[in-house]
Amino acid sequence: MPTNSALQPSPSGAVVVLQAAVASGVSVCFANPGTTEMPLVGALDQVQGIRAILGLFEGVCTGAADGYGRMLGRPASTLLHLGPGLANGLANLHNARRARTSILNIVGDHASWHLKYDAPLTSDIESLARPVSAWYRSVARAEHLWQDTLDGIHAAFAAPGGVATLVVPVDFQQRAAPDQLRADALPAPAPAFDEARVGEVEDALKSGRAVVLLLGDRALSERGQLAAGRIAATTGARLFSETFPARTERGGGLPDIDRLPYFPEAAIAGLKDAVVVLAGALAPVAYFGYEGLPSELASVDQLVTLALPGEAADLALERLAERLNAPPLPTLPATALYSVPDGPLTPQAIGRLLSNALPPEAIVSVEGGTCGYPFVTASARAAHHTILTNTGGAIGQGLPVALGAAVACPERRVFALQSDGSAQYTIQALWTMARERLPVVMLIASNRRYGILQTELGRNGIEPGQQARRLTLLDDPPFDWPALAQGYGVPALIASTTEELRRALTQALQHTDGPLLIEMRLA
Amino acid sequence: MPTNSALQPSPSGAVVVLQAAVASGVSVCFANPGTTEMPLVGALDQVQGIRAILGLFEGVCTGAADGYGRMLGRPASTLLHLGPGLANGLANLHNARRARTSILNIVGDHASWHLKYDAPLTSDIESLARPVSAWYRSVARAEHLWQDTLDGIHAAFAAPGGVATLVVPVDFQQRAAPDQLRADALPAPAPAFDEARVGEVEDALKSGRAVVLLLGDRALSERGQLAAGRIAATTGARLFSETFPARTERGGGLPDIDRLPYFPEAAIAGLKDAVVVLAGALAPVAYFGYEGLPSELASVDQLVTLALPGEAADLALERLAERLNAPPLPTLPATALYSVPDGPLTPQAIGRLLSNALPPEAIVSVEGGTCGYPFVTASARAAHHTILTNTGGAIGQGLPVALGAAVACPERRVFALQSDGSAQYTIQALWTMARERLPVVMLIASNRRYGILQTELGRNGIEPGQQARRLTLLDDPPFDWPALAQGYGVPALIASTTEELRRALTQALQHTDGPLLIEMRLA
Repeated sequence: MPTNSALQPSPSGAVVVLQAAVASGVSVCFANPGTTEMPLVGALDQVQGIRAILGLFEGVCTGAADGYGRMLGRPASTLLHLGPGLANGLANLHNARRARTSILNIVGDHASWHLKYDAPLTSDIESLARPVSAWYRSVARAEHLWQDTLDGIHAAFAAPGGVATLVVPVDFQQRAAPDQLRADALPAPAPAFDEARVGEVEDALKSGRAVVLLLGDRALSERGQLAAGRIAATTGARLFSETFPARTERGGGLPDIDRLPYFPEAAIAGLKDAVVVLAGALAPVAYFGYEGLPSELASVDQLVTLALPGEAADLALERLAERLNAPPLPTLPATALYSVPDGPLTPQAIGRLLSNALPPEAIVSVEGGTCGYPFVTASARAAHHTILTNTGGAIGQGLPVALGAAVACPERRVFALQSDGSAQYTIQALWTMARERLPVVMLIASNRRYGILQTELGRNGIEPGQQARRLTLLDDPPFDWPALAQGYGVPALIASTTEELRRALTQALQHTDGPLLIEMRLA
Repeated sequence: MPTNSALQPSPSGAVVVLQAAVASGVSVCFANPGTTEMPLVGALDQVQGIRAILGLFEGVCTGAADGYGRMLGRPASTLLHLGPGLANGLANLHNARRARTSILNIVGDHASWHLKYDAPLTSDIESLARPVSAWYRSVARAEHLWQDTLDGIHAAFAAPGGVATLVVPVDFQQRAAPDQLRADALPAPAPAFDEARVGEVEDALKSGRAVVLLLGDRALSERGQLAAGRIAATTGARLFSETFPARTERGGGLPDIDRLPYFPEAAIAGLKDAVVVLAGALAPVAYFGYEGLPSELASVDQLVTLALPGEAADLALERLAERLNAPPLPTLPATALYSVPDGPLTPQAIGRLLSNALPPEAIVSVEGGTCGYPFVTASARAAHHTILTNTGGAIGQGLPVALGAAVACPERRVFALQSDGSAQYTIQALWTMARERLPVVMLIASNRRYGILQTELGRNGIEPGQQARRLTLLDDPPFDWPALAQGYGVPALIASTTEELRRALTQALQHTDGPLLIEMRLA
């Protein structure tokens, strides 16, 4: 019988929300739903073009959406269960906020008429969501579902990008949702830059003063880095990357750009007396405040802004290079392998071995101090790759971000270089990687302690007693990483020497039908 | 050399906070600290009488503080790292809020002078904390540290009990904290009841109308239940417990009190046409709103309040029994064993086998629908035990609550009867149990699915397509529970039949030097 569309019932609100999301380019939903999201769960099979991926814990979903968004520049959606489900996802939304990643963060809620009864799962979702959200709205009328979803995605895209939290009460999901004003989805805005600022930076570079270009956001794209390299070669300006960039390209002959040091003493020394040009980066501040050290790593009168985060810092750098008549960089040198002697595993050896092993266009999610810095130092000589770091300091983002990047870029190999302590916060990511057959290689730096806390106790002048010391140790019992991996259906290898890690990395690259974990037992 | 106390330096702010906490009866700190909590970490060795217990994830710490507080009636403290650390602990603080558990929730923050620079880990902690906190304060002056801590603990104790969030900027922790007005810690207030309300309930019971006593909070203590049993026997009133009590005593001859059913149809039927007496319980509302069903399970004009949560509902019930001249209950029957035939594991068989196996004064943390109801139904015939349930619906509380209960009551055996899906949210609890050698017996109901979601899809009239169905399944890959347990240093057993579970429970009871996990493979 032919279908008469005029006689078809109105779609449900849940279908409208997903249709609006798909129309705006959302094609993945990282979900951990509950009772109040069932109509949206059902609608995932009614709306073409959106893939549902289950996480066992909400922080896996939000971190994956962050990794996905960083790689593709368009939002994934989440699907979370009321206030408590959102709460479990907040830490990685905090990181996404600092990375300025576009995310459509969908939270189901009680039926609108049920909220006033303060049932057990009721809570103040707005208060929970606001600190991480660039935009927040709880759907108030069925007729607004399409526009509310579009508004959220548009806000997530708006410079500099962010988390849009859309709360959808279950009654609006369930019921037929007629009378939508179906406005067209808007394209993501194209970033621009301010020519006048380029002139100001040109003047600074010609002033004879020492200049540092601090690169963040789009300045760390391939185009941005190549332009910055030309500027540095021509003017003698020094280049730094933000300490924790959301995304940076590296290797394949790109200029070897140091990260601004983490501890304020070294960062201040690196910026001292220079004009500091902010290219997609914010004014640099200390990660933590330390008595006797300033929070501002450069004084306000040192700063000149070339482009704000979200603006086209890469194009601004190209324009600047052009105005300076900076010649193209010499032909990119071939990537070079490190010679790593046989012996125990040190962070430096790990960084170099991973750098050697990276196939072209790899993605490396880096979390944790132990191996992160040595790897980034080494990887300037690797094949071209993309590095994703922990932008907001909420640990437990490395594995979920790797997961999301692997969903976003199935044609690229993804590595997670991960400290053992921080891996535990969202360990459930392993299961989703196994379920989705994502060939992520997880490299766990197993040193059985919170190394950063031992350092920070020392910086605080604290001689730890028994309880304090024990709060920094993870050795009683030690994690059995291969067993944990097996628990989630992930094969694992152990490497205790450089030779073992070299072999394990070779094996890992041949393993293409799912994740693999390598426990790197540090000396 | 003799010490002259007059010449001693002032203690640090961190020491003052812990001294005030200890003076108020806080003796345990469930901690997952970071850089901004280092002075408090150091102070844990300088202040006598407080034990630090490390969690790998903040939800383990907050859930453990909840379980501890439910058992001892006095607060544990937490120690969490800034906004993101708090965020990871919020879901179980939501449950603690619904359980009205007293908790001193300590959150470190950036140095007060560093906050305005909006460093990566900066966030709006107050906005995150308010929805779960009965009391919130960020320390504003070093001189207030003692009083702020006392105020927080007093607020946590104030009826009906709750979470007090105390934010301590690291500079106030670090510096010497002189000039404290060291007021004495106040004792926890003694709960009372209102005699006039007892009279109103007596009138209702004598009116000839059907009466239901709905018991919550202190009405579910042993005294409360015995008094309620006397009233029921004398007047014919029907007894229900809240559906999800924070703590209830059971077995050992206590009256067999049904829980108010979870789904609203059955709950409404159970309360229909009766006077509903609220004894430590709130007016009953539906867990979720369902189209066509009321949110209020009893109408307002059915309700009579005997005692509010936090009031002495148990003493009010005793007074009522006295006014009714209700005789003591007949001698308590001996506990009775169920005969469970050999065969596959069903939820009913599991409930009965666990009921049979409980040693006197066991504590059972119950989370998950699959086995929770059948166990509680069965356990009226068990030896006397205490049941702790999930009060707020944020899943991932069962294992941490068991952990906290085991810390609180080292002389009692603790069981966690736990669904597999919900166990995953705070799976890191296993490690802390192993580290602290807590003899918790974890019974994982392994049915490899989110059973409640399959039920709720059906209630929503959704015929699940491929994506929706997959969002309810945990079978690809299945969790390897013994491997996960081994990963955290916990021995494990598998039971697939009633006979295997009987043997596993016997083994578990002999295992007293640490946790043990039993994977119960459901038919």
